[in-house]
Amino acid sequence: MSKKKKIIVQKFGGTSVATAEKIKKAAQRAIDEFKRGKQVVMVASARGKQTDELIADAMELNPNPPKREMDQLLSTGEQQTVSLVAMAIEAMGFKAISLTGAQVGMVTDSVHTKARIKSIDAGRIKKHLNAGNIVIVAGFQGIDENENITTLGRGGSDTSAVALAAALKADTCDIYTDVDGVYTTDPRIFKKAVKLEQISYDEVLEMASLGAGVLHGRSIEFGKKYDVTIHVRSSLSGKKGTLITHEVPKMEGILVSGATIEKKLAKVSMIGVSNKPGNAAKVFAHLAKAKVSVNDIIQTEVSKQKANISFTVSKNDFNDTKKAVEKIKGKVGCDNVFYRDDIAEVSIIGVGMRTHYGVANMMFSTLAKGKINIDSITTSEIRISCIVDKGQAEKALNSICKVFELDKPVNKRSYVK
Amino acid sequence: MSKKKKIIVQKFGGTSVATAEKIKKAAQRAIDEFKRGKQVVMVASARGKQTDELIADAMELNPNPPKREMDQLLSTGEQQTVSLVAMAIEAMGFKAISLTGAQVGMVTDSVHTKARIKSIDAGRIKKHLNAGNIVIVAGFQGIDENENITTLGRGGSDTSAVALAAALKADTCDIYTDVDGVYTTDPRIFKKAVKLEQISYDEVLEMASLGAGVLHGRSIEFGKKYDVTIHVRSSLSGKKGTLITHEVPKMEGILVSGATIEKKLAKVSMIGVSNKPGNAAKVFAHLAKAKVSVNDIIQTEVSKQKANISFTVSKNDFNDTKKAVEKIKGKVGCDNVFYRDDIAEVSIIGVGMRTHYGVANMMFSTLAKGKINIDSITTSEIRISCIVDKGQAEKALNSICKVFELDKPVNKRSYVK
Repeated sequence: MSKKKKIIVQKFGGTSVATAEKIKKAAQRAIDEFKRGKQVVMVASARGKQTDELIADAMELNPNPPKREMDQLLSTGEQQTVSLVAMAIEAMGFKAISLTGAQVGMVTDSVHTKARIKSIDAGRIKKHLNAGNIVIVAGFQGIDENENITTLGRGGSDTSAVALAAALKADTCDIYTDVDGVYTTDPRIFKKAVKLEQISYDEVLEMASLGAGVLHGRSIEFGKKYDVTIHVRSSLSGKKGTLITHEVPKMEGILVSGATIEKKLAKVSMIGVSNKPGNAAKVFAHLAKAKVSVNDIIQTEVSKQKANISFTVSKNDFNDTKKAVEKIKGKVGCDNVFYRDDIAEVSIIGVGMRTHYGVANMMFSTLAKGKINIDSITTSEIRISCIVDKGQAEKALNSICKVFELDKPVNKRSYVK
Repeated sequence: MSKKKKIIVQKFGGTSVATAEKIKKAAQRAIDEFKRGKQVVMVASARGKQTDELIADAMELNPNPPKREMDQLLSTGEQQTVSLVAMAIEAMGFKAISLTGAQVGMVTDSVHTKARIKSIDAGRIKKHLNAGNIVIVAGFQGIDENENITTLGRGGSDTSAVALAAALKADTCDIYTDVDGVYTTDPRIFKKAVKLEQISYDEVLEMASLGAGVLHGRSIEFGKKYDVTIHVRSSLSGKKGTLITHEVPKMEGILVSGATIEKKLAKVSMIGVSNKPGNAAKVFAHLAKAKVSVNDIIQTEVSKQKANISFTVSKNDFNDTKKAVEKIKGKVGCDNVFYRDDIAEVSIIGVGMRTHYGVANMMFSTLAKGKINIDSITTSEIRISCIVDKGQAEKALNSICKVFELDKPVNKRSYVK
């Protein structure tokens, strides 16, 4: 038997396969890895704006289309891409085969439009790989146990790719995209932001949930769970991007890996809520019923009788939130409610926080020096977030980036040992 | 148990589902039959010019795309249509479910781009019908035993529909199209052509092979084999169209059901071929190798040593034919070859010919009266075809139509008992 070849999974998003030229470039990247002696599995999304166009076609016929049929419709976008990529690879003289979610045995639950992967039949792909094929798999889609086509939700191709990498025990999962990696922060705001060479799953998860939009959150959870090295890199250049991996010892010295800013935020402060068991639960159950997704919650006891509850929501949900709160406030004995949508959240993220004291203080004193008022603070084990006035948010982010030296590669920061 | 409901299959071609408006109309036709108490299975093609667009996308990447990938690509067109139709039906307040070829268990052989149906899992569709759904099935496509997507060739949706009707023992298979039925002849040439109420499978098969382009030939073979009544009708009006059925006794009185004209024809006459066994086979094997499809063949013995072989081919194949004949003629001792592409074939078709004498004579004397020279004649049991000068072909068709009264409904013709 020949030596076992390494497997690589490459994922190309919609913009990276939008035209015939781009499809040829993606095909070439697969061929390059194949020539290096690897077995190559490519995962592709629908071309360009195609998913949006199909959604528009559907809405014209039914403003509230059945989700099963939506999945049946949208899954065609990826199916078209993978067959076209296979044709391109064949035209370049290499063997290729495209597979849909069903053909690859990507079994999911039956929650249409946001299904979760239950199992993958790695044997089917391996058979094609061992026959010398580059295998191109339709991202974003699967099939449930009754052969209904399902989709994994927007950005689900990332999850398909990482899940395949896990099932195939791939060496790495390359995510080709239109940025060249994960940055310390948003370069549109902090001009000197630098690309990170490496970052941990947990840090990216915190950044993703704070709106940095790096990768589909579930793909990172998959990577973490199954130990898949994810390489976020540019489809335009051949340069190394950012590796997303498990936490490695050297990361602990890096106090702060990145900083984020979230502007599409609104805040609700319910003052003097009756301090009875179950009142907070009542409020949030009511909001859940109104399909409002609540972010950070702060509850403080003001007296034995009264507590203040405040929380943030996405600005898109602000109107629904207000309606829901106005209905519930009387039932929980709330004295008064304040609404704010002139706020933003500035956060720092880093696994180093776990073992270093003083990070919070560095952040707060930096904001104080800049005369930036902190409305409220929430933290997790590896994150500190401050709500500030929206008008001061970019200034806040910039000053934090400077003090934590997010304009420098990790090994050149003064505080890193 | 409730009384067993009748099943109807309705097929809508690409032009009948090209826009949202047309999809809604098709949906309404399904709902109309459903309201009449029938179980409805709809078969749909890809919308409008979509298949052509996908082929163009493929050609841009690979001028000779692998057929498996072509099927993977093209099958998405029908999948989109059926999910959209299901959405439209749901929006109108009725239950619907769309199924791909794979989901419907339409198993074919593995001859990509022109696969043949091997079996259909009627149980799956019946389950959905019995749950009160209108079932919309993607036409044109199937799946082979290794889960590769296959297609049945252009026009294959007709075959899908009739095959489903056979598997479901449907009451009838309605083929909705942009003409309102099968005509006695081409109304663009014989203005007074009339729509036939009924015609036999064999007659339509002869007409289809003579270029009348009524229906996909294999769909009619299926209908004949499994005794499915096919109703060709207009998607624009609600009017009755033409029923294609087994031969019924009354058809025997109808001497001639229809007449056709085929202009895209060329003729080759090989004179003085050595009269040795195997020489004709040599010629046609050579043509087959050149991928030329030969129509009618006439071989006549001129002497013990020599024979003449003449045959017709599609005009599209004329150049390839000439090249092939020039190569082979020396090897079969052929004295001379004449090529003609200024000819056309005029034919009459009717199961009544089987039991009536004099039909051929009526045709030939009509042409003689019109001073139309007959180059050659071929016949089948239910067809007589004459090769004539192209310039005289339309005149020939008109005079034949008049004498066989193809401008009158069947029961008003003077020769019909």
